[in-house]
Amino acid sequence: MNKINRIGFVIKPHAPGIEGILRDLLAYLRGKGVACVLESVAAEMIGARRGISREKLPAKVDLVLVLGGDGTLLSVAHRAALADVPIMGVNLGRLGFLTEIPLDETRLTLDALLAGNTDIISARNLIAARFGRRIHNCLNDVVINKGAASRMIQLGIRIDGKEVAVLKADGLIVSTPTGSTAYSLSAGGPIIQPLVAAVVLSPICPHMLAFRPMVISERARISLKLLTDGEEVSLTLDGQRGTLLKKNDEVEIRRSDAVLRLVTSPRRNYFDLVKEKLGWAEYGGGRRN
Amino acid sequence: MNKINRIGFVIKPHAPGIEGILRDLLAYLRGKGVACVLESVAAEMIGARRGISREKLPAKVDLVLVLGGDGTLLSVAHRAALADVPIMGVNLGRLGFLTEIPLDETRLTLDALLAGNTDIISARNLIAARFGRRIHNCLNDVVINKGAASRMIQLGIRIDGKEVAVLKADGLIVSTPTGSTAYSLSAGGPIIQPLVAAVVLSPICPHMLAFRPMVISERARISLKLLTDGEEVSLTLDGQRGTLLKKNDEVEIRRSDAVLRLVTSPRRNYFDLVKEKLGWAEYGGGRRN
Amino acid sequence: MNKINRIGFVIKPHAPGIEGILRDLLAYLRGKGVACVLESVAAEMIGARRGISREKLPAKVDLVLVLGGDGTLLSVAHRAALADVPIMGVNLGRLGFLTEIPLDETRLTLDALLAGNTDIISARNLIAARFGRRIHNCLNDVVINKGAASRMIQLGIRIDGKEVAVLKADGLIVSTPTGSTAYSLSAGGPIIQPLVAAVVLSPICPHMLAFRPMVISERARISLKLLTDGEEVSLTLDGQRGTLLKKNDEVEIRRSDAVLRLVTSPRRNYFDLVKEKLGWAEYGGGRRN
Amino acid sequence: MNKINRIGFVIKPHAPGIEGILRDLLAYLRGKGVACVLESVAAEMIGARRGISREKLPAKVDLVLVLGGDGTLLSVAHRAALADVPIMGVNLGRLGFLTEIPLDETRLTLDALLAGNTDIISARNLIAARFGRRIHNCLNDVVINKGAASRMIQLGIRIDGKEVAVLKADGLIVSTPTGSTAYSLSAGGPIIQPLVAAVVLSPICPHMLAFRPMVISERARISLKLLTDGEEVSLTLDGQRGTLLKKNDEVEIRRSDAVLRLVTSPRRNYFDLVKEKLGWAEYGGGRRN
Repeated sequence: MNKINRIGFVIKPHAPGIEGILRDLLAYLRGKGVACVLESVAAEMIGARRGISREKLPAKVDLVLVLGGDGTLLSVAHRAALADVPIMGVNLGRLGFLTEIPLDETRLTLDALLAGNTDIISARNLIAARFGRRIHNCLNDVVINKGAASRMIQLGIRIDGKEVAVLKADGLIVSTPTGSTAYSLSAGGPIIQPLVAAVVLSPICPHMLAFRPMVISERARISLKLLTDGEEVSLTLDGQRGTLLKKNDEVEIRRSDAVLRLVTSPRRNYFDLVKEKLGWAEYGGGRRN
Repeated sequence: MNKINRIGFVIKPHAPGIEGILRDLLAYLRGKGVACVLESVAAEMIGARRGISREKLPAKVDLVLVLGGDGTLLSVAHRAALADVPIMGVNLGRLGFLTEIPLDETRLTLDALLAGNTDIISARNLIAARFGRRIHNCLNDVVINKGAASRMIQLGIRIDGKEVAVLKADGLIVSTPTGSTAYSLSAGGPIIQPLVAAVVLSPICPHMLAFRPMVISERARISLKLLTDGEEVSLTLDGQRGTLLKKNDEVEIRRSDAVLRLVTSPRRNYFDLVKEKLGWAEYGGGRRN
Repeated sequence: MNKINRIGFVIKPHAPGIEGILRDLLAYLRGKGVACVLESVAAEMIGARRGISREKLPAKVDLVLVLGGDGTLLSVAHRAALADVPIMGVNLGRLGFLTEIPLDETRLTLDALLAGNTDIISARNLIAARFGRRIHNCLNDVVINKGAASRMIQLGIRIDGKEVAVLKADGLIVSTPTGSTAYSLSAGGPIIQPLVAAVVLSPICPHMLAFRPMVISERARISLKLLTDGEEVSLTLDGQRGTLLKKNDEVEIRRSDAVLRLVTSPRRNYFDLVKEKLGWAEYGGGRRN
Repeated sequence: MNKINRIGFVIKPHAPGIEGILRDLLAYLRGKGVACVLESVAAEMIGARRGISREKLPAKVDLVLVLGGDGTLLSVAHRAALADVPIMGVNLGRLGFLTEIPLDETRLTLDALLAGNTDIISARNLIAARFGRRIHNCLNDVVINKGAASRMIQLGIRIDGKEVAVLKADGLIVSTPTGSTAYSLSAGGPIIQPLVAAVVLSPICPHMLAFRPMVISERARISLKLLTDGEEVSLTLDGQRGTLLKKNDEVEIRRSDAVLRLVTSPRRNYFDLVKEKLGWAEYGGGRRN
């Protein structure tokens, strides 16, 4: 990892108390001689002369600091990965799977990073979805699903050039291990430890009950072809960016060359995070015998 | 049941061979002195002078005969129920949960009905969804779900006037027992025998893993209120008719006064149908020990 | 409900603090002129001259008071139902689905019952399992399952005299609505509101993925026949009492004539209880978008 | 792969027609100059002088030929893996996940192997379970589960030395990708492509609904400790071999050094096999819209 001389700020602008938090951290970091770069909305918030767009920010800094939730982090994660810049997510209240650092550990974690500690950085593979001439890098998932008023869609699934199945369903989630605890989990997919070299294909409300989530090699070339006509169907990338698909459109998914370096809390490992987020500790309900 | 003097035809117009099947059945029934009434698209197909709209047809006849799949039958089921006219679904190839009569049993089944046999008629309760000033009667289900590119929605669920939960999910299916083997099953809901006096609330990809399908009394008054803003959200009735919802819109669901009388095959009972449709007989896969 | 002149005590003997709680309640009730009858283990605990067996206690009293968890209540529930005596479960720490009254509401709830308040009593249907010449009444569930080291078993399932399926699985749970939040929920069954007149058949690890939980009428006559040989297979009643089954043994299940009158908390309805037990309120994990 | 000079026969002795099939194959192979070694039960069947135990057979031959189902193959798979000898499973009627070769392709497949074709051999990692002083190599799964009449058990799960969770459930399945389509699938686990370097932990009827199957690195050291007392609990290896566990017993599971070389059909790839076994092709049921 490069020495951290410049830190870029990405924020969830309407989070309560965000302005004070931002000002505090800027003062703290500037006191340590670190240059701070703000995305436009953050610059505006504190009356700074000029910010920089969220898209361009990662390439200008040595660390991206996100103040917000997992959604905010996801919106910039692929840019940070492409720029090979680590990202640190500070949650403003509720622990996130990606924004794992609580506000009161922020300075400590920044100090550790500034001192060159890389133990708390977790490497996360991205997947790349090619649609038409564009390639979209995704940290969590690539989703194809039907519109609210649409009927079931049919997707032809090919893996490494061979047809695996025609899926009839509301849609399909192709998720990285990092994304396995997000949308895929809601659709019935398994929890996948981030270091496993795999992706999971989780159908959304499949017509066929035996069509279960499939964990396949991250080296696999996945091709999804929309076979149905006349319905509204979307391709959604990391739950953030999307585009409409029409009959015979194909999306090709494979492992991205980009890797995200995600700052995690030294106070918990991956399974601690899962346990805390999914409420395993407090659970009181269900069976008796 | 009234004596059957007039039979109304509802068809899936693009089904292969539909014209010949229609002509044959018309000839057969007219030969028995039964008057036949055609919906417009069927009238046009055989060059008859005038048809009648699908909406108005049930009130004009003593039996509705559907030639097509479950979707075709669903499009007219609520009208038949409101008009208190039985409905008979003839599938044109693939067995349906609603269109259970195969083509080669059609004459036999019609003969039984004309002779006054009511043993093969199964009473199915409908649910009524009130939205704004309109009431929609549904044989299968009332679904609220998010658009393809939308984020998770939040629905406030009240039962008999008391708040039960705020559901974060892609959507919610409120299904009759008849609809329990349709969309609800794909979403993880149970199979419910038609005579059980209940409805099931099946969440679609719920955020909270412990939010499981709930079977409640068909006497319950269910109120669903959309709590989220800015996303495309639809209300869909029997997978056929729909409308958009906006924040704070409420949908109230309760048992309908209408009951559908559905003609079933004398050759199989409800569980035979489930077994055949879900492939329980042929299944070869899965476990070993 | 009869006027409550005599209250019978059933306890979980190793619960922390149980002796003090028992002495306090006895003093409180005797102060009100209510006669208290103790099961043997409770009598022994406080050095009373004689107790009565748990089996015989319900028939001697006007109310059964359980100090313990759901397991303790289940052990006496069928006896209370057969004797037509209401039962009140006080949990000693952790809220139960059946033992809903917390310790600090015990006096208040007893006062309400002594004053003749019946609003807080919920009627719960039992199921009766006949095996050989014995009939077992169950509040929660009847379970057939394989031994730890056994292979998958095969069960022939008949409903109202007709064969529905041959299930290959680890076992099958036949559950009342009351039991739907216990073992059946763990096996993938739905939550069923107690007043729904139904039972649910939930397979345990079925070989066939399309074999899903089935909700059927409580009027149905269910017959389960063990078709496999040479494996250890148990019939378990309310998770408490059990017996071994061998090939061709049949268990017949139908609605019991007995109804349990269960005292519930006036401070929460059924769905509040579900919400609290299943942790719906606190849940923080899972999806993001 | 070594040149195949000696082939060892393992059979399911009560399979219909097995004797004729065995005699035919022996004649065929001897005609090609291949030495045939029989396990005891096979030797006895055809009146040969002496057989060899199933345990010792793999080490004496260049290929193990199994005539039977997946259970028969599993009973010898770990021995073949330890002896580094490939195994070929011929199913006698019903396609297996492991016994993929149909009888009528047997000669063709043997010819290919004798000619040195290794394209049809799939390498499958095993897992090794250490319990006490013994190490058990397993192709499919290691299962800890409760007895038929036992209550829920508690298992402490540690991964790489850190406690991940205390599971309350009927049991836990630790499965390889090869085993993912066996017991684990019935318990709700995902399908895992054999080449993925992972294992899956699938809980059996977990008390906590948010405890979902977890896919973790095959490099992980998994430790399972039984925390409950007084119940019958078994450790079962590949659904074949087992032993009882008592409180505080620990089972350690990690990747085995042994790899099984499994002969697959040249006529289908892994997903074709999944599709055929799980009935994806023929499925007719379920949803409509």
